[in-house]
Amino acid sequence: MPTTSNPEQFLVWLKTQIPLLNHMGLGELEYDGKRLVLPAELAPNINDKGTGFGGSLATLATISGWCLTTLLLREQSLDCDVMIRDCEMQYIAPITNDFYAQVVVPSTLDVDSFLLRLKEKGRARLALDVSIKQNGIVALKMTGNYVAIQRT
Amino acid sequence: MPTTSNPEQFLVWLKTQIPLLNHMGLGELEYDGKRLVLPAELAPNINDKGTGFGGSLATLATISGWCLTTLLLREQSLDCDVMIRDCEMQYIAPITNDFYAQVVVPSTLDVDSFLLRLKEKGRARLALDVSIKQNGIVALKMTGNYVAIQRT
Repeated sequence: MPTTSNPEQFLVWLKTQIPLLNHMGLGELEYDGKRLVLPAELAPNINDKGTGFGGSLATLATISGWCLTTLLLREQSLDCDVMIRDCEMQYIAPITNDFYAQVVVPSTLDVDSFLLRLKEKGRARLALDVSIKQNGIVALKMTGNYVAIQRT
Repeated sequence: MPTTSNPEQFLVWLKTQIPLLNHMGLGELEYDGKRLVLPAELAPNINDKGTGFGGSLATLATISGWCLTTLLLREQSLDCDVMIRDCEMQYIAPITNDFYAQVVVPSTLDVDSFLLRLKEKGRARLALDVSIKQNGIVALKMTGNYVAIQRT
């Protein structure tokens, strides 16, 4: 894994690792240490009803939480394997245009507790709320638990 | 939507409607009225760790439940829009080889209740348990609620 925490370079690298991400019309990954945004075009993610395919929305939400966890760890120079452990998803409204995933970094208390546990135990869990939005309106809400395991 | 309930023709049609499904190395859809199986190759669904990408697994589970609901309705000559409403997913084990989704048709009581409500109200919800498996071992468990709305 490259050590860059530059979001653009990170996404370029990620697309070399996860072939499916090259077929989703992903836009530019944005991450400022507080919030992550990952856009996608509707056309490659369309379904039989001409709206956003549930699987595409689920994939974008899943990878966005993974990216936030990984970039957050990289800011701390921590090299970990990151995996999703479980999630709940609610499909709230159909996607009818280009869309994006948004993940906000949890509270300082939660992040500090995650990092402390990781240093003590070599593994820790981070709970994230991920939204898929279109023009600011929420189409899908996901709550996901991601597990980080320090590489030895 | 074509009226066929032949699984092979159904998947061919579905791939013309959902472009992402053409990039997942899907195998032959099997459905015998009791159980649906949809295989996928590992290679196009790999992640940075060389195992199955969580987003791919989530997508395969989501579409498999959707296929079962749609084929079950088609057996009854019911023409509906089918959508996933919500789901829970647990990632249990990494995928290290080709894999498949498996969905079992719910009990006769649950299916009859779903069909009765659909006829009475024009819409109804079906709860499905979907598994992603590799060599018979469960890698992901999903419980999903699918909503069918009769076309008028």
